[in-house]
Amino acid sequence: MRRVLVIGIGAGDPDYLTLAAVRALGEADAFFVMDKGADTEDLVALRREVCARHATRPDQRMVEVADPPRGDDVAAWHEQRADIYERLLAGELGDDGTGAFLVWGDPAFYDSTLRVLRRVADRGTVAFSVEVVPGISAVQALAARFAVPLHGVGGALQVTTGRRLAAAGWPDGADGVVVMLDGGCAFTTLDPAGVTIHWGAYLGTPDEILVEGPLAEVAGEIVRVRAEARARKGWMFDTYLLRREG
Amino acid sequence: MRRVLVIGIGAGDPDYLTLAAVRALGEADAFFVMDKGADTEDLVALRREVCARHATRPDQRMVEVADPPRGDDVAAWHEQRADIYERLLAGELGDDGTGAFLVWGDPAFYDSTLRVLRRVADRGTVAFSVEVVPGISAVQALAARFAVPLHGVGGALQVTTGRRLAAAGWPDGADGVVVMLDGGCAFTTLDPAGVTIHWGAYLGTPDEILVEGPLAEVAGEIVRVRAEARARKGWMFDTYLLRREG
Repeated sequence: MRRVLVIGIGAGDPDYLTLAAVRALGEADAFFVMDKGADTEDLVALRREVCARHATRPDQRMVEVADPPRGDDVAAWHEQRADIYERLLAGELGDDGTGAFLVWGDPAFYDSTLRVLRRVADRGTVAFSVEVVPGISAVQALAARFAVPLHGVGGALQVTTGRRLAAAGWPDGADGVVVMLDGGCAFTTLDPAGVTIHWGAYLGTPDEILVEGPLAEVAGEIVRVRAEARARKGWMFDTYLLRREG
Repeated sequence: MRRVLVIGIGAGDPDYLTLAAVRALGEADAFFVMDKGADTEDLVALRREVCARHATRPDQRMVEVADPPRGDDVAAWHEQRADIYERLLAGELGDDGTGAFLVWGDPAFYDSTLRVLRRVADRGTVAFSVEVVPGISAVQALAARFAVPLHGVGGALQVTTGRRLAAAGWPDGADGVVVMLDGGCAFTTLDPAGVTIHWGAYLGTPDEILVEGPLAEVAGEIVRVRAEARARKGWMFDTYLLRREG
């Protein structure tokens, strides 16, 4: 049976790779790479570096395919990706072959690879097993850089999106909130009283930017720094932790 | 200045160690180990294995100290730990020495090391820097073992405790809930309709136990398996993910 490895390669720093990921990189016959276009060229560079260091068998192949454009219909987009994955698994791997998808951060957080593979499995057209190697997520890279816990003692952490935070406000019951996929500085929509923000962009990379402080004092600085960095690099990947005591 | 490394060593599997953690293990002059008693002997064994493999310089020292018993007053317990940490940093490290605390999983999730170090720093009696190396948490080990995402598309994840889940019910806005530190099977207090549970104990270790399915169907099995394993091993460390669509 074909074997599919979904390998979390961590957030930004090539040394965030685990020993399990290093081993898995050595076991793959083919790496399936979805090319998302120029705006993620730094991420492509990390993937190349990781493979160059740890996938060194001469018979290991990189198979690059164009990612279908993502519209508003996520289910349709996943179905298109499932068509591609199915073709890759059936056409690029032998019956006992091992294929690998490399996922930025951890495959369990805001990534579609596992959902799309589930769709392929449900079709029943090609038999394969799935093994996941967890990776250091941007959530953890952020907390590590600031040397802070993600929640209060015995508290709760919510990991959410900018859209949800802007729409629903501070989540009930959480004393820590990590926001990902925020294109619009949703932290500016909150009442800043008593809230501390730890904000990081391009975490783990040489371009990393870190700002922290009381939200009321540093929100404006983050908005400005973020806009400048985005203009300079052409893309932005940021994550932040909001903490509120009590 | 003294340097303190807080190193996440991952949840259970020694291969969950990152390359950054391996490097950090090689840099420490002394490892500070809090002995919590016999009930965590498997965790102590993992720590020993990790050090035996990666802290191989003959001048690296293990410094074991008894952990003060944890009462209901968490602040007082942290203060007692701060006394111990302060003594370790001042007495066991030279002015330019590097000490390391090894933390199960990731230092940002349900661990007091960073909070206690902050207390020591606030005292101003010994100067030191803190560097955190993130680790694979039980949250991620769980998701990887079941090959599932932690939340729905564009959704939100809450990481919480058994006590909070039992008291407050399903957290508003989350479609995934990870529960840690649950001594009482808080999942049995929920309305199970439409909820899937992915439950894991002793994750990443040879004793790992995994159960998943609709909460209504498998809750009783988990309660039984958990009680049996706890009786057999003398302690229990479990984590679970609850998923609800929509």
